Amino acid sequence: MGIAIIFPQRKWFAEFIGTAFLLATVVGSGIMAEQLAGGNVAIALLGNTLPTGAILVVLITMLGPISGAHFNPAVSVVFALRKELSWDQCGIYVLFQIAGGIIGVWAAHLMFDDSLLQFSTKARTGGAQWFAEAVATFGLVFTILATLKARADAVAMAVGLYITAAYWFTASTSFANPAVTIARGLSDTFAGIRPIDVPGFVVAQLVAGVLAWLVCKWLLQDQGRVQG
Amino acid sequence: MGIAIIFPQRKWFAEFIGTAFLLATVVGSGIMAEQLAGGNVAIALLGNTLPTGAILVVLITMLGPISGAHFNPAVSVVFALRKELSWDQCGIYVLFQIAGGIIGVWAAHLMFDDSLLQFSTKARTGGAQWFAEAVATFGLVFTILATLKARADAVAMAVGLYITAAYWFTASTSFANPAVTIARGLSDTFAGIRPIDVPGFVVAQLVAGVLAWLVCKWLLQDQGRVQG
Amino acid sequence: MGIAIIFPQRKWFAEFIGTAFLLATVVGSGIMAEQLAGGNVAIALLGNTLPTGAILVVLITMLGPISGAHFNPAVSVVFALRKELSWDQCGIYVLFQIAGGIIGVWAAHLMFDDSLLQFSTKARTGGAQWFAEAVATFGLVFTILATLKARADAVAMAVGLYITAAYWFTASTSFANPAVTIARGLSDTFAGIRPIDVPGFVVAQLVAGVLAWLVCKWLLQDQGRVQG
Amino acid sequence: MGIAIIFPQRKWFAEFIGTAFLLATVVGSGIMAEQLAGGNVAIALLGNTLPTGAILVVLITMLGPISGAHFNPAVSVVFALRKELSWDQCGIYVLFQIAGGIIGVWAAHLMFDDSLLQFSTKARTGGAQWFAEAVATFGLVFTILATLKARADAVAMAVGLYITAAYWFTASTSFANPAVTIARGLSDTFAGIRPIDVPGFVVAQLVAGVLAWLVCKWLLQDQGRVQG
Repeated sequence: MGIAIIFPQRKWFAEFIGTAFLLATVVGSGIMAEQLAGGNVAIALLGNTLPTGAILVVLITMLGPISGAHFNPAVSVVFALRKELSWDQCGIYVLFQIAGGIIGVWAAHLMFDDSLLQFSTKARTGGAQWFAEAVATFGLVFTILATLKARADAVAMAVGLYITAAYWFTASTSFANPAVTIARGLSDTFAGIRPIDVPGFVVAQLVAGVLAWLVCKWLLQDQGRVQG
Repeated sequence: MGIAIIFPQRKWFAEFIGTAFLLATVVGSGIMAEQLAGGNVAIALLGNTLPTGAILVVLITMLGPISGAHFNPAVSVVFALRKELSWDQCGIYVLFQIAGGIIGVWAAHLMFDDSLLQFSTKARTGGAQWFAEAVATFGLVFTILATLKARADAVAMAVGLYITAAYWFTASTSFANPAVTIARGLSDTFAGIRPIDVPGFVVAQLVAGVLAWLVCKWLLQDQGRVQG
Repeated sequence: MGIAIIFPQRKWFAEFIGTAFLLATVVGSGIMAEQLAGGNVAIALLGNTLPTGAILVVLITMLGPISGAHFNPAVSVVFALRKELSWDQCGIYVLFQIAGGIIGVWAAHLMFDDSLLQFSTKARTGGAQWFAEAVATFGLVFTILATLKARADAVAMAVGLYITAAYWFTASTSFANPAVTIARGLSDTFAGIRPIDVPGFVVAQLVAGVLAWLVCKWLLQDQGRVQG
Repeated sequence: MGIAIIFPQRKWFAEFIGTAFLLATVVGSGIMAEQLAGGNVAIALLGNTLPTGAILVVLITMLGPISGAHFNPAVSVVFALRKELSWDQCGIYVLFQIAGGIIGVWAAHLMFDDSLLQFSTKARTGGAQWFAEAVATFGLVFTILATLKARADAVAMAVGLYITAAYWFTASTSFANPAVTIARGLSDTFAGIRPIDVPGFVVAQLVAGVLAWLVCKWLLQDQGRVQG
């Protein structure tokens, strides 16, 4: 008997195509929702939330066994800190995530007959927004690590539902992902963020991701065992 | 001990009734949603999306063990290419899918006291729409094949969630299914498509379905095995 | 080792309390949704659909092992036809379902500070409505029987999702349940139905339920077995 | 072999952080939904319901193995009555739940750039409201205990779906939780409740929780066993 080996190129492709579909969904459903919502932003956000949560469950379920289905540099960094991913691989993952995110945004623009290259003009900055991103990413990494420990086969569902909630309970609508943030800088639509505001978000995300890793390290490790 | 045999007639009936319920849902919920939404198309699309995603999970769960629960010629062609369905059976499946789809549309018209025979007047054409259909069908076939490999018992859920997302992230609201496209040509309601626009959609769907099969062939096959 | 025995009184109570919570949800969420929706009926129907689908999954999951979680005379009749419930027990089940339904409606009225005893004035009659109820109930019984065979642990989810879809794709918003129909006759709110229109619905539901049982009898039984 | 031991501090932290995220979601999504809904309260309630149901599934899935994931004094009291939690631990749980709830509300205020310390001015009082809270909490405790018995791995999903329904079918939008009620007294936003109205809700919740425990004690215990 043997265990299947997956060559690195396939992992990278999985991160690429997964992040591409994630961004195509976030940006595409944002365009669709805003066009149809007749100015009611809550309805537009519902039309943006459901697709995003749904596609996350799908992508993580089907690509998880290949690459881990991170689609998120903050998550890859945490798995490198956990020594489940080498730092080299982590770097390559991040590159493919960013590339996939940009291709996904462009695919959304093409589908909606929009100009390919855009830069967002939507301001998302300031302490409250950064705090919101920190809470959002802390919660996301916490969700991934704690669910992996509690019930590994529920991670895809947990991440999809967490983001469904976080779109609404964080003032920033929960980017919680540096690759997503960079890619959304390239779309002047509902889901966009001014390129100048990207670094603030990314810093908040990475700091909160590492913090969640530290808390989970304490919370989730077994402290003792009954003799047996 | 033995394994149950299912006679072909039952498989054909499963494809027929499944596609009929799918189309009754797509068209019926479209009529209901448009009638009630007071002109807000985003609300109407929410009322069209939830039922479609929900019924797909139900139909694939309950009919999967009988026929495979394709309900979609593009999917049947891919399973013929994978040699899991003979080309003869594939042809018969497609006929029953198209017949079921038309009966489903007519059932919806009857339930809403609408005239049985209609032809849609809603234009859905052009490069952006075709590209959207290609993305939608590529993603659907990719979802089916990758989830079958990763976790076969999650396919029904994955397809329902994928279509929930794709209704919003593709500009065409994701037909992604030649039988659905033909049947929706026969309904001059929210979910309709002009008969003259059907062929463009079908070509895009079939090309993208085959492309997804090729990509998955490379991505999902084991490349080597640890000695054991 | 032994198998737990559940005394009949507990089964009857399970049917009673389950149908009561189902009706409290259908009628209560209908009142809430209509009060808040500002005249947009599609939004009201969304606020009626989500709770109904959700509570069905909960009630069937938790009460299924006790009574089978029918909450529906059409379903109990089908299980009597399948000889999984005696006709005596079937009669008692139906009485407790109707009583539970009425108590549920009254609980909803109490919670919303409404008068207890009401009679609906909402007309729901005519061939299209009866056909819609027949389709709805056929699909519901089909869903239950086919999912029981395909994957018994998914029945609760399947019924919840089926009703979520059927609220939108049937012109009658899918009562599909004689006890629910009778009870909703006693509420002059969003979810009501004129008492005079109840018999037409009930007949359509029972006929379609039996028809679904006959179709499933043919579709789901094994026709032969590989020698083993 | 051995079984993992979890030190009490981790259980307390799990109750703290879980209740904090629950309240951040309830209050944060309430603020977001009300700001965006343009005065349509049904749309705002949809934007409040989906996140709350979703985060409950996530939190109970991932923290259940650590502390039981109560996040609710009424639930902790019931588990103390069931002798699965000592009364000492129950008291400490309640303190951490209340503290977590308050921190969660404040986190929501911070994220939305709102003043930290607030007191709600929204009246929620009177017999109908108290009866609604009693029904809501009875149903919640019933759901937890019956699902634990029927299918323990479905409790997280059942609670999330139950609250999704109860937000709509109870006139009070289902607080069903004394810690949540206290914390929501400190937010003058969509989800708030006047501090003076808190005691009435808490009494109704505790009485109904104990009642549900008594009913379940009768309904769920095995009454006899087949000889084996």
